[in-house]
Amino acid sequence: MTEQTRFLLNESDLPKQWYNILADSPNPPAAVLNPQTLEPVTPEFMSVIFPMNLIMQEMSSERYIDIPEEVREIYKLWRPTPLIRARRLEKALGTPAHIYFKNEGVSPSGSHKPNTAVAQAYYNKIAGVKAMTTETGAGQWGSALSMACNFFDLELQVYMVKVSYDLKPYRRILMNSFGAEVYASPTDTTDYGRSVLADNPDNPGSLGIAISEAVEVAAKSGGTKKYGLGSVLNHVMIHQSVIGEECLKQMDMAGEYPDVVIGCVGGGSNFAGIAYPFIRENLKDGQRTRLLAVEPAAVPSLTKGKYAFDYGDTAKMAPVVKMYTLGHGFVPPTIHAGGLRYHGMAPSLSALYDAGLVEATTVPQKATFEAALQFAQTEGILPAPESAHAIRAAIDEALDAKEKGEKRVILFNLSGHGHFDMASYQKYMAGELQDFALPEDAINEAMAALPQVS
Amino acid sequence: MTEQTRFLLNESDLPKQWYNILADSPNPPAAVLNPQTLEPVTPEFMSVIFPMNLIMQEMSSERYIDIPEEVREIYKLWRPTPLIRARRLEKALGTPAHIYFKNEGVSPSGSHKPNTAVAQAYYNKIAGVKAMTTETGAGQWGSALSMACNFFDLELQVYMVKVSYDLKPYRRILMNSFGAEVYASPTDTTDYGRSVLADNPDNPGSLGIAISEAVEVAAKSGGTKKYGLGSVLNHVMIHQSVIGEECLKQMDMAGEYPDVVIGCVGGGSNFAGIAYPFIRENLKDGQRTRLLAVEPAAVPSLTKGKYAFDYGDTAKMAPVVKMYTLGHGFVPPTIHAGGLRYHGMAPSLSALYDAGLVEATTVPQKATFEAALQFAQTEGILPAPESAHAIRAAIDEALDAKEKGEKRVILFNLSGHGHFDMASYQKYMAGELQDFALPEDAINEAMAALPQVS
Repeated sequence: MTEQTRFLLNESDLPKQWYNILADSPNPPAAVLNPQTLEPVTPEFMSVIFPMNLIMQEMSSERYIDIPEEVREIYKLWRPTPLIRARRLEKALGTPAHIYFKNEGVSPSGSHKPNTAVAQAYYNKIAGVKAMTTETGAGQWGSALSMACNFFDLELQVYMVKVSYDLKPYRRILMNSFGAEVYASPTDTTDYGRSVLADNPDNPGSLGIAISEAVEVAAKSGGTKKYGLGSVLNHVMIHQSVIGEECLKQMDMAGEYPDVVIGCVGGGSNFAGIAYPFIRENLKDGQRTRLLAVEPAAVPSLTKGKYAFDYGDTAKMAPVVKMYTLGHGFVPPTIHAGGLRYHGMAPSLSALYDAGLVEATTVPQKATFEAALQFAQTEGILPAPESAHAIRAAIDEALDAKEKGEKRVILFNLSGHGHFDMASYQKYMAGELQDFALPEDAINEAMAALPQVS
Repeated sequence: MTEQTRFLLNESDLPKQWYNILADSPNPPAAVLNPQTLEPVTPEFMSVIFPMNLIMQEMSSERYIDIPEEVREIYKLWRPTPLIRARRLEKALGTPAHIYFKNEGVSPSGSHKPNTAVAQAYYNKIAGVKAMTTETGAGQWGSALSMACNFFDLELQVYMVKVSYDLKPYRRILMNSFGAEVYASPTDTTDYGRSVLADNPDNPGSLGIAISEAVEVAAKSGGTKKYGLGSVLNHVMIHQSVIGEECLKQMDMAGEYPDVVIGCVGGGSNFAGIAYPFIRENLKDGQRTRLLAVEPAAVPSLTKGKYAFDYGDTAKMAPVVKMYTLGHGFVPPTIHAGGLRYHGMAPSLSALYDAGLVEATTVPQKATFEAALQFAQTEGILPAPESAHAIRAAIDEALDAKEKGEKRVILFNLSGHGHFDMASYQKYMAGELQDFALPEDAINEAMAALPQVS
C-alpha cells in the first residue's frame, strides 16, 4: 500500500489489444434479427448502415483484437487515463473503504466515448466511407464522434435528442467546432421524424427516436453515408475495454484489487469498458470482484425490464437483439442524465446479467446530484450526471462498508465531466429537480409491443 | 529524441519548492506605495486586506520557498500536469518546428489558477481567516478560489466582471457548486460599485472595478474577511512557478530544450508560471531561450503601455505599484478573453520586460479564435480564449520556422480549456466577432490620470 493519490501509466502501457468478452461469456450471444423479417440478419443487411470491417468485428468471437496503430496514436492524446484514489471523499465519509476512480473525463471531448468513436471513424475511413450519421443524448457521444470524424476527415450529421439539444446548447457548439452538423431530434428532415412530430409536435425526443433518424439517413443514402452507434453493440464494448485493461495495471500499482467495480449504465458501454476485463479475471480465478451496474430509477431496463428480443430503435429500422428492455416504444422521463435515456441494454451485458455475473441497482435523480456535489466538493471534479450514478452507488457501498466495519476496495468509472451540464446543476441547487415515480404504465404499454419472436 | 506524445511525471516529481524570481531579477522591485499617501506601504496597511503570512511571502526575496504539505496534497489531485508534443498540429502546419504545450487545463477548475488559489486559501486558513473576497474576469480565477475555499472550509464572495457574468452563466454555477456567492460587478452592494453605476448604469465592468469592490468589502469587514488576488502580485507568481519547474523536467524527458517559451498575459501569472524558471536557467547558463508574452491587441499593456507607478484597481483602493500600465481608469474593449482585460501587468514581469529579458507581442481577436479552432481540430482540446493567444503566437513561431527552414523547439502554456467559453466560439463561427482598433483615445485619457510619484 502506497500513499499515492494518482496512478499514472506511461504511453508504453497503453493497451495494444482490445478484449472481447464474447470469447469468455458463458451465454452465447443470441442471433441478431432483421427487423422486417425477424430472421437472423446477414452481413449484407447490416452493410447498408455499417462498413463490413465493423460488422466482422461485431460478430467476432476472438478474445483479443489488435488496436490499429492509427487508433493508438490518437488514444495517446489523452490515454492512458489516470486512476485516482479518492482519499478526500473517503475521509468525508469516514469510511474504512478505499475508493478509486478511473477518470475518463480527461479525454478532449470529456468522456469515455472517444475510445470507440476514434476506432469507428478509423474503420469507416479505411472502408472508403466519406460521411457518417449518428444520434446523441447528452452530447458526449456526438462530441466524441465529431472529434473523431474531424481527425479522419469524414463528414458527420448528428441527431441530438431535443430535450438535450435545448438544455445543452454548448454541446452543440462543441460539435460544430469539429465541423459536425447537429439537428434537434425529432426533426422534420426524415420520414420517421416527421411521423413522430405529426403524432406529437412537442415530443422531447429519445435516444430510440434519434437512432431511427440517423439510421434512416444512412440507409437511404445509397451507400454514401454510414451510421455509427455510441453504445449497445459489441464492437463498441470491445473498444471500451481499454478502460478496464488500464485499471488492472493501475490497481496493481496501488497494491490492491477491487472488491466491487461500479459503472453507470444507459446502453452499457462505459460499464462494459471498466467491468469486462475484471469479469475475465473472475472467470479465470474465481469470483473476486462484484460488478455493479447502476441505472437511473426512471429508466430501469436491467432491474425492471424484460430479457427479450426487441428493436434497437423506436422506428423498428435497427436490428432486433435479445436484451433487457423496457420496450422500444418507451420514452423515458426527461431526467438530467440524457446519456442514460435508452430503452434497452447492450446484449452482451444483458447476457452477463442474466447469467448472474453482474449485479444491478437503481438510484433516484436527486440523491444522484447530491452525490455529484459531494464528490465535487471533496475531489474537485464536477462529474457528468450520468457518471454521478456510479458515484452515488460507490458512496453507498462505502457507507455500507463503514456500517459493517469492513475494509472494502471500491473502483468506479468516472465516465465524464459535467462542464456541459451546468444548467442541470443549477436546477438541482435551486431545488427544482424531482425524482420520477417508476413509469410503470408507460413501461407496461411499451412491453406489450415487443416483437413476437418464435 | 523519442516518439512519445505525452510526457508525464510521477507524483514524486511534484515540486517541493516554489521559485521566487525576485532573488534573481536584475531589477530590484520598486517599492509598493500606499494609494492614499503614495508613500511606501507598511505591512500593517497591507494586513487590512491580506493575512500577514502572504504579505511576508509577497515581500520575500528568498529564492526557494517550501510548498506546505497540505498544499501539495491538494496539488496531487491533478499535478504534475502533462506536457504534450503537438505532433498533429506540427503536421498540419508542415513545420520543422517541434511544438510542446503544458496542459494546465486538466485541473479540476480548468486552468492554472488553482496553483495559487489552493496556496492562498491555505495561508488564509492557518492565519485564522474565515471568509475571503475576490474578483474574477473570465471566471477561471473565481472557480479556482471557490474550489480552494471549499477545501479549506472558508466562505467566499466573488465579484465577477458583468460582461463575463452575462456571457458565462455556467462559470457562476460552477462557483456556486463549490459554495461561493457570485455577484455581477459593478454591483450596488459596495460604495464604489454604486458610484460606477451612477456614472454609467450600463458599465460592462472590468477587472479593475471588480477588484475595487472585492477590496472594499474586505477592507470594511473589520478584519473578518480578507481579499485574494489571482494574478499580478509576486506571491501569485511564486505559486505558479510549479508549471515551469515541471516543464524543465518534462523537456528533459523529451530530450529537447525550448528555443522559445510562450504564454498569454493579462496580469501575467500563467506566463510567469511557465517562464520564470526558464529565465533562471538563462541567467545561470546564458540566454538559451526566448520568453514571449502574448497580449490581446485590444489590451496592450506591455507593448503600448507605460512603465510607471499606477493603482492596481480602478477605485484607487489597492496599493500603487510600478508596472506597465494602460492607466487604472482604462476599461478594455469587451474582448472574449475576459481573463486578459486588465489595465496593468505584474510588477515582476514588468521589471523583466523593462530589462529586456522578456519579449512581448500582440495578437488580434479573430486570428486568435482561428488558431484556437486549428488547435482543437488537430489536438482535440478546445482552449480557453485566453490560452488561444499563446497558441496563435506558437503557430506564428512555427510558421516562421518553416519559412526559415529552421528546427525550432516551441513550448507554450495551455493555461486552460474552453468548456465555459462556448458562446464565444459560437459567435466566432457565426462571423460575429470583431477585431478592435487600438483604443488609443481611451488609453491616452487613462494615462493622463496616472498618479504623480516623485
